[in-house]
Amino acid sequence: MNFRSDNEGKVAEPILQAIIEANQGTAYAYAEDQWSERLNIAFSEVFETEIQVLPLATGTAGNSIALAQMCPPWGSVVCHEHAHINLDECGAPEFYNPGCKLAGLTGEQGKLCADNIAQWLAGQGAHGVHQNVPSLISLTQATEAGTVYDVGEITAISAIAKANNLFLHMDGARFANAVVSLGASPADITWKAGVDILTFGASKNGCMAAEALVVFGHPDWYEALERRRKRAGHLVSKMRYISVQLLASLNNNLWLTLAAQANGFAKQFADAVEKHPSAELAWPVQGNELFLRWPQQKLQALQDQGVDFYFWPGSDDLARLVFACTQEQANIDRLVELLNQID
Amino acid sequence: MNFRSDNEGKVAEPILQAIIEANQGTAYAYAEDQWSERLNIAFSEVFETEIQVLPLATGTAGNSIALAQMCPPWGSVVCHEHAHINLDECGAPEFYNPGCKLAGLTGEQGKLCADNIAQWLAGQGAHGVHQNVPSLISLTQATEAGTVYDVGEITAISAIAKANNLFLHMDGARFANAVVSLGASPADITWKAGVDILTFGASKNGCMAAEALVVFGHPDWYEALERRRKRAGHLVSKMRYISVQLLASLNNNLWLTLAAQANGFAKQFADAVEKHPSAELAWPVQGNELFLRWPQQKLQALQDQGVDFYFWPGSDDLARLVFACTQEQANIDRLVELLNQID
Amino acid sequence: MNFRSDNEGKVAEPILQAIIEANQGTAYAYAEDQWSERLNIAFSEVFETEIQVLPLATGTAGNSIALAQMCPPWGSVVCHEHAHINLDECGAPEFYNPGCKLAGLTGEQGKLCADNIAQWLAGQGAHGVHQNVPSLISLTQATEAGTVYDVGEITAISAIAKANNLFLHMDGARFANAVVSLGASPADITWKAGVDILTFGASKNGCMAAEALVVFGHPDWYEALERRRKRAGHLVSKMRYISVQLLASLNNNLWLTLAAQANGFAKQFADAVEKHPSAELAWPVQGNELFLRWPQQKLQALQDQGVDFYFWPGSDDLARLVFACTQEQANIDRLVELLNQID
Amino acid sequence: MNFRSDNEGKVAEPILQAIIEANQGTAYAYAEDQWSERLNIAFSEVFETEIQVLPLATGTAGNSIALAQMCPPWGSVVCHEHAHINLDECGAPEFYNPGCKLAGLTGEQGKLCADNIAQWLAGQGAHGVHQNVPSLISLTQATEAGTVYDVGEITAISAIAKANNLFLHMDGARFANAVVSLGASPADITWKAGVDILTFGASKNGCMAAEALVVFGHPDWYEALERRRKRAGHLVSKMRYISVQLLASLNNNLWLTLAAQANGFAKQFADAVEKHPSAELAWPVQGNELFLRWPQQKLQALQDQGVDFYFWPGSDDLARLVFACTQEQANIDRLVELLNQID
Repeated sequence: MNFRSDNEGKVAEPILQAIIEANQGTAYAYAEDQWSERLNIAFSEVFETEIQVLPLATGTAGNSIALAQMCPPWGSVVCHEHAHINLDECGAPEFYNPGCKLAGLTGEQGKLCADNIAQWLAGQGAHGVHQNVPSLISLTQATEAGTVYDVGEITAISAIAKANNLFLHMDGARFANAVVSLGASPADITWKAGVDILTFGASKNGCMAAEALVVFGHPDWYEALERRRKRAGHLVSKMRYISVQLLASLNNNLWLTLAAQANGFAKQFADAVEKHPSAELAWPVQGNELFLRWPQQKLQALQDQGVDFYFWPGSDDLARLVFACTQEQANIDRLVELLNQID
Repeated sequence: MNFRSDNEGKVAEPILQAIIEANQGTAYAYAEDQWSERLNIAFSEVFETEIQVLPLATGTAGNSIALAQMCPPWGSVVCHEHAHINLDECGAPEFYNPGCKLAGLTGEQGKLCADNIAQWLAGQGAHGVHQNVPSLISLTQATEAGTVYDVGEITAISAIAKANNLFLHMDGARFANAVVSLGASPADITWKAGVDILTFGASKNGCMAAEALVVFGHPDWYEALERRRKRAGHLVSKMRYISVQLLASLNNNLWLTLAAQANGFAKQFADAVEKHPSAELAWPVQGNELFLRWPQQKLQALQDQGVDFYFWPGSDDLARLVFACTQEQANIDRLVELLNQID
Repeated sequence: MNFRSDNEGKVAEPILQAIIEANQGTAYAYAEDQWSERLNIAFSEVFETEIQVLPLATGTAGNSIALAQMCPPWGSVVCHEHAHINLDECGAPEFYNPGCKLAGLTGEQGKLCADNIAQWLAGQGAHGVHQNVPSLISLTQATEAGTVYDVGEITAISAIAKANNLFLHMDGARFANAVVSLGASPADITWKAGVDILTFGASKNGCMAAEALVVFGHPDWYEALERRRKRAGHLVSKMRYISVQLLASLNNNLWLTLAAQANGFAKQFADAVEKHPSAELAWPVQGNELFLRWPQQKLQALQDQGVDFYFWPGSDDLARLVFACTQEQANIDRLVELLNQID
Repeated sequence: MNFRSDNEGKVAEPILQAIIEANQGTAYAYAEDQWSERLNIAFSEVFETEIQVLPLATGTAGNSIALAQMCPPWGSVVCHEHAHINLDECGAPEFYNPGCKLAGLTGEQGKLCADNIAQWLAGQGAHGVHQNVPSLISLTQATEAGTVYDVGEITAISAIAKANNLFLHMDGARFANAVVSLGASPADITWKAGVDILTFGASKNGCMAAEALVVFGHPDWYEALERRRKRAGHLVSKMRYISVQLLASLNNNLWLTLAAQANGFAKQFADAVEKHPSAELAWPVQGNELFLRWPQQKLQALQDQGVDFYFWPGSDDLARLVFACTQEQANIDRLVELLNQID
């Protein structure tokens, strides 16, 4: 049973079917196909505003391109110290934008906190031209700790951003899980709350490889974003097969159905942990990631029973379990059973 | 009828089937799945030597990563002036390797010529530390002009490379078409002829999105190549779906069957052009690309009949037609018919 | 006798004196000293318009920073194929602006030609997002061939630039020599003719190490230029010693006096060559560089007599002699004497 | 009275004299002059081992080139959180090496601590190819807090470096002050303690603009370092004027005499602070920088009396005073007097 990551799950059947159906005849390459051309409209409906969308294959590329667009090559990006862009992209944001720096701030439950940001910003600028210029804030929604920013938290951070002339980026690798968790509208937690670009993740939510840069406003950014995508080698030639995944995801709210499935699996196990005498949740489970604090021996026993997951780097009593939307209910049941057996 | 490019064709059925079959259960992400792990063996068999393979989604990324590996950031890359890396990648090689330069040399029929290279190299170095250092030669096989380097030509260029301490790269976006055209073994036209890295293209040959960096020797390069792939955002998380395309291509020589199909279509139309009173082939048709020289009015008439193709940049009497392996025979028949009707 | 380059000459006495005089007490670092702060005014007077000036130590840095400012990292820079930025800066422009390309065009007498540029530009754009975007034209004044663009030539090129939304850069490593040669005002051959940024060279004209980016208009560029200078390590801490060189150069038109001296030396030798039975000038001598075409044996004889110069790369019968403003008249006399003796 | 920085002091007389004396006749450009060519020998004598030296004009360039040489573009550099390379170079290290990251660790008195480094390193690597690879440690000697690493501290850090396959860099902007402070030999606190490259600073120690990359061992690095210098625009053409400053500094241990002067000034004021009833030294004064903790009102009163210094960023009761070697004794006397008067 694999709970290592949601990107180790298979492709959801409706997504695969959509790919198969798109495999008819020829289609113009490089995102000039009919599927890609429908993306703007499809996303505009979901986000209730006119937006521009750039499809691509990976979130690292999406994030790096977005950050490079919003940060001069002598700027700095405010993010959580444990943000994926800071810890897990092998310097991609710095490679895409040579000279920029990521400033990783602390924050409870994997979240940036408006006060921390304000305090940090107040300390910037004293070195004048010698110091990088804070240029944007990047939030991960849902966070790397499995928690979710609510509208108030986003709005508070956005206010700091606006007050300091910073842009606001959202790394939405698990955006769908956050939307479901909050029960909020996509619009409310993005552009209405001040987000400039969202990296909309679909790969972790049942797609094969599909992400989208969703740009709110800033029509003048589009050409530059396209260029950044091309010169990074991310303008996939047969883009129809990526775009169709995105369209299928949005169709009939499949993306929310899938995320609800994933969140539900996580919730089931979270409930079991909460009732458990010795296991604990490190942070609230608000999406499809769950951080289980349990003695190393117990976690090891779980692995010995065939439960595959990551020990959190730097800890021997903290496990991350991620619940893919394509996970099977039987596996959840078995996982709960094992949890209770081991103790 | 779309003859604009082979990357506008659909995915070949056996490739799609392989993708569908791979969609079972979970698989480790980031190329640690069982399909990705079989690539080295599968490619080693085809190339008759032990090699390391890096799967990725686009040729631009593959080329740029390979060039960056073989060229210091103050080096220069010798290529044909019309090479894809020079004209069609929006500066990707220079973005991946800031400071390097591409030196585009002239050459008949889209091919670099050993003598030209030697002469150009002789003129380098006089500016000492002020001038970029020639570091590698990059060939496109088949070329952007639809021609193919034979073993002798590659060997001659390779000899120049070795004599000048340059590496040799092959952009094999249409490598399969070249192999079929030459009837040579993949080994003979790559490592046996001195190639260090081949960008093996499969996307244009019936895949959805699948390329591979094939590294001959240089085991110490592997970690750096992996890092370059990751930080560029090209370590696709669900890599199994890319790797399985490559495995399916190699299986039972499907890649050669598909390329033979594509080349055969091109040949049929080339034969018709050769018999034609006014149309001409600009260069020998050795792969699946065909350059048709014909008065603008005639080419326009062809387009008016629904034949979609590119006018070659800078020309009004030169059309490029590319024959995808998934093209339909009926379309070729109709194309020949139109050619003869129009005149 | 060293005629290798004008950057091998010593510092002119008035410049050295100015440096010595500036060595009093303390001065704010990083260009906040009183000398640096007078630069804008001093240059504005010379150029008859309000301008902003960035002092720095090398021309390569000045050119690279200027080009990066005017070219997106997916743009291309039109220049002469033999431009210093293209051949002699070891990829600095590409390092400062990863992803940009330099397009080296041919042109008689080391000069770009408006028609060539127009023709080249007409061929761009056909590859869409796949091809770098022409973004600026860079002229060298005086050129690397020792010739000088007249106002008409600059204006013609500028017209092409404006018509194509390109910026215009002037590499003025030997700008003083061109001003003297033309007898034109600095304004006439720069901003009045459409130049956006001039890299004003003083090092070759009797300074120790002093160049200035002279920005015409574009007040919004200034902060970015400052940042580019800083992060490249070119914000010299004790900038007063650079700025004072520039001030001393402009003072009482010393820069023109020095350039006239240099040009005069070149002219003396050019006159001798023109009267000579076998030696020839490869190009008109319009500044302080002279290209002497003479059989290799004769040039070798000249070197054997202690005349130090460069054979032009790729030629065995073409010598470049550069006349520094601090050259001595006796050396010119002796050079002429040797020329006539050898034949 | 300016105590803002030692780079606001004038050039020491013997250095200026050496520059004036070098202003004779012509000299080959680009560090091929006789002064530059004597650098290797002069530095080898001082450091008691055969070394290679690269002269340049700024410390930011020296540091950035050194770091880029020792760190792959997916590596990370361990440094103190307050290191100049991290806070005061506007992202220069990241610009010179796109994709690398600086990891700023905490440490008492501005010093990295071997245990902290070891602990941090132990937490790296868990993210595999997704995380930057620790590649070198950079120490500042003397530190940004005015303290000095002793031999034991350097050796302990070096041992961590070697155990983890990291290189060791020393930012020696105030190296001379540290040598004098420790009374150690230059060799003992550099290569004998495991340093791979030292950025030897002379600008702050009485020069006009002169720094040197001092490379211990690694003969294969030299060409790459030269290329990195050139393409960054730091191969100053009339290098003789930089190299002669370095030679004059080393001659008769002038550099140590000057640093002793500077340190002595700092010591005088430190003694006064220690005797003072309310003022305090924030950290031990071991070089020529002094951090004065005193109520804001008092510090303000000092400024009102004409004492120019920086409030430390983020503090209102912490002042940095830097004592240049060319400072005047009368100013120190007056400074002490004011200190005592104000209280």
